[in-house]
Amino acid sequence: MSQFAIGLDFGTSSARCLVVDVGTGREVATAVAAYPSGQEGVLLSDSDVHLARQRPADHFDSLVACTREALAQADADPEFSRDRIVGIGVDTTGSSPMPLAEDGSPLGMKPGWDENLAAQCWLWKDHTGAAEAEEITAKAAEMGRPFLDKCGGTYSSEWFWSKILKCARVAPEVMEAAHSWGEMQDVIPAWLTGTFGPEMKRGICAAGHKAMYHQDWGGLPDREFLAALDPRLAELRDRLYSATETADRPAGRLTPERADQLGLPAGIVVAVGAFDAHMGAVGAGVQPGTIVKIMGTSTCEIMVGGAETPDIPGVCGVVPGSVIPGMIGIEAGQSAVGDLFGWAARELDGRPDAHIRLQEEAARLAPGESGLLALDWNNGNRTILVDTRLTGLLVGQTLQTTAADIYRAMIEATAFGSRVIIEQIEAHGVKIEQVVACGGIAEKSDLTMQIYADILNRPIRLSRSGQTCALGAAMFGAVAGGAHPGIAAATQAMTGFKDRQATPDPAAVAVYDRLYRLYRDLHDAFGRTGRTPDLSGLMKQLLAIQKEASR
Amino acid sequence: MSQFAIGLDFGTSSARCLVVDVGTGREVATAVAAYPSGQEGVLLSDSDVHLARQRPADHFDSLVACTREALAQADADPEFSRDRIVGIGVDTTGSSPMPLAEDGSPLGMKPGWDENLAAQCWLWKDHTGAAEAEEITAKAAEMGRPFLDKCGGTYSSEWFWSKILKCARVAPEVMEAAHSWGEMQDVIPAWLTGTFGPEMKRGICAAGHKAMYHQDWGGLPDREFLAALDPRLAELRDRLYSATETADRPAGRLTPERADQLGLPAGIVVAVGAFDAHMGAVGAGVQPGTIVKIMGTSTCEIMVGGAETPDIPGVCGVVPGSVIPGMIGIEAGQSAVGDLFGWAARELDGRPDAHIRLQEEAARLAPGESGLLALDWNNGNRTILVDTRLTGLLVGQTLQTTAADIYRAMIEATAFGSRVIIEQIEAHGVKIEQVVACGGIAEKSDLTMQIYADILNRPIRLSRSGQTCALGAAMFGAVAGGAHPGIAAATQAMTGFKDRQATPDPAAVAVYDRLYRLYRDLHDAFGRTGRTPDLSGLMKQLLAIQKEASR
Repeated sequence: MSQFAIGLDFGTSSARCLVVDVGTGREVATAVAAYPSGQEGVLLSDSDVHLARQRPADHFDSLVACTREALAQADADPEFSRDRIVGIGVDTTGSSPMPLAEDGSPLGMKPGWDENLAAQCWLWKDHTGAAEAEEITAKAAEMGRPFLDKCGGTYSSEWFWSKILKCARVAPEVMEAAHSWGEMQDVIPAWLTGTFGPEMKRGICAAGHKAMYHQDWGGLPDREFLAALDPRLAELRDRLYSATETADRPAGRLTPERADQLGLPAGIVVAVGAFDAHMGAVGAGVQPGTIVKIMGTSTCEIMVGGAETPDIPGVCGVVPGSVIPGMIGIEAGQSAVGDLFGWAARELDGRPDAHIRLQEEAARLAPGESGLLALDWNNGNRTILVDTRLTGLLVGQTLQTTAADIYRAMIEATAFGSRVIIEQIEAHGVKIEQVVACGGIAEKSDLTMQIYADILNRPIRLSRSGQTCALGAAMFGAVAGGAHPGIAAATQAMTGFKDRQATPDPAAVAVYDRLYRLYRDLHDAFGRTGRTPDLSGLMKQLLAIQKEASR
Repeated sequence: MSQFAIGLDFGTSSARCLVVDVGTGREVATAVAAYPSGQEGVLLSDSDVHLARQRPADHFDSLVACTREALAQADADPEFSRDRIVGIGVDTTGSSPMPLAEDGSPLGMKPGWDENLAAQCWLWKDHTGAAEAEEITAKAAEMGRPFLDKCGGTYSSEWFWSKILKCARVAPEVMEAAHSWGEMQDVIPAWLTGTFGPEMKRGICAAGHKAMYHQDWGGLPDREFLAALDPRLAELRDRLYSATETADRPAGRLTPERADQLGLPAGIVVAVGAFDAHMGAVGAGVQPGTIVKIMGTSTCEIMVGGAETPDIPGVCGVVPGSVIPGMIGIEAGQSAVGDLFGWAARELDGRPDAHIRLQEEAARLAPGESGLLALDWNNGNRTILVDTRLTGLLVGQTLQTTAADIYRAMIEATAFGSRVIIEQIEAHGVKIEQVVACGGIAEKSDLTMQIYADILNRPIRLSRSGQTCALGAAMFGAVAGGAHPGIAAATQAMTGFKDRQATPDPAAVAVYDRLYRLYRDLHDAFGRTGRTPDLSGLMKQLLAIQKEASR
C-alpha cells in the first residue's frame, strides 16, 4: 500500500500544494492558489520602490485553497487515500520575517494592524533596509564580531535583522507591539500545528543563513552587538529563540481545526520549515559534488559539503544542516536571471511573444557572434560581490547589433556570473562535478541550458520534477513522518533526472573561455575596489572574437 | 535687379539643387533627386559589409534632374531669371574617390567597367581599406614622415590613399586601367565645365584633409613613401596633381552641352568643389570662435582659425583654406549620431513612430534620472581617438530601465563625445564661444539641442537655412562668379540664425558636469591604452546622481 506526503511551497505570488507517493516520487496531484492581495500578491508603496510586503492571512488562505484542490484531484487516483498521508513539509521564500503578537501569531492579522504595512510580512525582496544592512556590516567589523563569516562577509538588506532594524526606525509602534518576530518558513508550520508562542520551532535554514545564528558564537548575535545597533534589538533577542531545528524534524502535528479546514485527518506530522531554494535543491537530488541551480526570476545555487567545508568569501551562506541534516549547506545566488531576460523582452521588443521570438533569433547565433558582453547586475550582485548597488553593463554594440544579440548576451552574462560563483566555491576546496538545473527557465529554455553547459564547461542535467521545491518539502514531510530514515533514502526513492541534458560543445567552450576572461576584467573593474584591469583592448578583442565566430 | 547663385549638394543618397538670391540669401527654389542605383543610391556587397560604392553616372543624372526641377520652380518667382545666375558651387561627400580613365572622366562609366565595383566611386563610408589605413599610419611613423600631423595622427579607412591601396590589391585590373583618380568634389565641377584631364582643378578641401597634401612637404606624400606602400601608388602620384585651389576660385565655365542639359545659359562660372560639411559650415555662418555642427547620421564639426592654429592630436584635419580661403580649416567628427538614435529607435522599439514616442518619454526625464551612461562608439570613434575598432557601451541598467532611458542616454553620449572634441580643440588654444547646429537632427529635435546646450554649457544656435550645405555651395558659386568679393561678404549677406536657440540650464549643467567626468573615465579606460582609471565607484555614482535627480 503506497504512502503519501504533502509538500507546501510558498512562492512570491502564490502557494502550491503537491501530493507525492513517498515510495516512488510519483506526483499524484498539484494545485496552485495565488495570494489575493496587492500586485501579484505583493503589497507595494508609491513612495518607495524598495518596499515589498505580504499579508500573512494571504499565505493561510492560499494554503487552504491549493491544498483542498490538490486533495480533490488526488482523490481521483485509485491508489491514493487521504489517510495514508504520513507527513507535510513546508518551504517558503526568505528571508521574509514578520512581527508576531503576544500570542505568537502574526501581528498583521490582529485588529488595528491590518492596514499598517510595517506590521505585515517583510517579503524577501523588500530592500528598504539597505542603509541598515550597511550599518550591520560596518558594526560587525567595528566590534570585531565573526557573525558575517558564514554569510559571505556582507550583510544584506534582504535579511532578517536589516528589516527589523528598519522597522524599529520607521514604525516604532510596530516594534513596540511586536512580542517577537518569525520567518514565514516557521510561521506556517506553527499555524498548521498550533504551536505559536514559545514552542514554535525555528528552522536552521533561515536562522543560519539570514539571522547570523551559529553555534560557534552561541546562537544569535550577542546582546551587546545588537544594543549597539539599537537597544530594542537587544531586548527583542530574549524573545526570539535560542534553539533551532533541521527540517527533517517535526514541528508538531496537524491540529483538528486545521485538519478540518484542509480536509485531512488530524495528527499528521508537519516538518520544520526551510527556504524554497534549499528544499528545491533536495527535490532536485542535491548531494556532495552537485550544485543545484534553481532558476527563476533570480537564481539560487545550493550545494552540500562535508564538515570540513570552510567559510567562502562572498558566498551568502555556509550553514550546518540548512539543506541536508548532517551536512554543511552552501547557498549562493544571482539577483536577476529570469528578471533580466524578462526586462530584455519587455524593453527590447515588448510584444507578447517576445521571449519566443528573441530566443529563436538568439539561438541562430554562434558563441561570440553577437560581439557583445554584458554584466548581469541589473538587480545588483548577490554572489560573490554582495553589493546591491551595482548595475548592468553592455559593451560591444555596433549599428548592426540586434535585440536578439542583446538578449543572448543577457543569457550569457548570467552564465558567466554563475561561473564566477562556481570558481569561487571550487577555489575554497569544494569540488563541483555536476550541475543540476530546475525551475521555469531550466524547463523551458534549451538555449539557456546549452549556453550554461558551454560556459560552465559541465553537463547540465535537469531535475525530473518540474516542482522541486514542493517535492523537497514533501520529502522532508516524509522523513519527519517516518516514511524514510533520512533525506538520503528519500532522495534515492523520490528524485531523478530527465533524460535530456545539455552537453558542452568543445568549440563553444573555447570561445566562451576567451569571453569569460573579458567578463572577469569587467567584473573586477566595475565590481571591486582597488582593481584596475586594462580595458583598452576589450572592444577590439570582442570584435576579433565576433569576426572569427561569423565565419 | 537681384542676382542668383546655384548650390549643388551631393549627399549619400541624393543630389540637391538650391537657387539663392546672392544679395539676401533668400532661397528661391530647391529640388532633390535620388540616385537611381543600389540601395538608396549605394552599391553594396553581400560578401563584405564594409563595401559602399556609387555609380558616377548617378551623380550626373541626379544633378540634371534636380537642377531642371529647381529651375522650373524658380521660374515662377517674379524676381528670378535664369540669365541672372552668376555662379554655381558644388559640394559632395568625401573622401569619395573614383578611378579616372585616360581622358580624365570616370572609368566606371566606360564600356566594360560598368559592372566592376572597384571601378566605381568609393563612397566615404566604404571601410574596406581598414587594414590599408593601419598600414599607412604605421608606414608614416616608421619612415618618420609628418604627413599625419595635419589629420589627427591616424590615417582612416574612409580616406583617399586607403581606398586606392585597397583597390590596387583587390582589383589590379582597375588600378592598371586608372590613368588617375579624382574626388567626387572635383569630378563634378570638371563634368560641368568640360575640364576633365590635366586641367581638372583639385580642391584643397579633399586634398588637404584626406590625401595628406600640404605645402609644408611639397604637396602629396613623396614617391619614396608611396612606393614603400605599393610601387603603383608611386607611379600614380605623377598622374595625380601638384596644385590645389580654394573653393572661391573658378573651376571653369558651364559648357554649352551641360548648359543645354540643365536649361541654363552657357558660360556661368562653376566654383572649385569642396566637402559638404565644409561648405555647410560656411552656409551656417562659420567664423573664428564658432564651431558648426552638421548633425545627420554622423556629425561633422567645422571651425576656422588664424594662421597660428596648431596641429591638434586626434582631430581629423587642420588645413589652410579648406573652409574659408585665408583661414585654417579645422574638421572633427563623430561617426554615429543620427545613426545611433536610429539604431535605438529600431532595436528598442521598432514601431514607425518610435522616434517621436521615445523622444517624448525621454524629454520627461531630468538629467541623470535615467541612471545610465553610454559611450557613443557604435560606429567607432572618429575624433579624438581616431579608432574605427571601438564599439558602444551602456552602463547603469536596472530592471526599471526603459527604452526611453536608453534613448536619452544615447543622445547624451553623443553630446559628451562632442564635449571631448571641443575640450581637445580648446586645449590647443583655439577658443570656442559659440555653437551653431544645422542638419536634420538640429532642426527636428529640441530635446537633443537642449541636452547639447546643457552638456556643452554653451548656447546652441540654429542656422537659419535648413540646407546649409547647398547654401554654402551657392555662396562659393556667388564669390567665384564675382557677386561678392569674398566669403566674409557672402556670409554677411546670405546667412543668419533662427530666432529660437537652446540655452544652458545651470542645474542641468551641474549634473552633466558630474556625468561627464564619469564619461571621461569610461572614454579613457576603453579608448586609450595605458590608462586604467578606477571604475569601481562608477555604478554607485550613477545611482547617487539618479537618486538626486529623481527627487
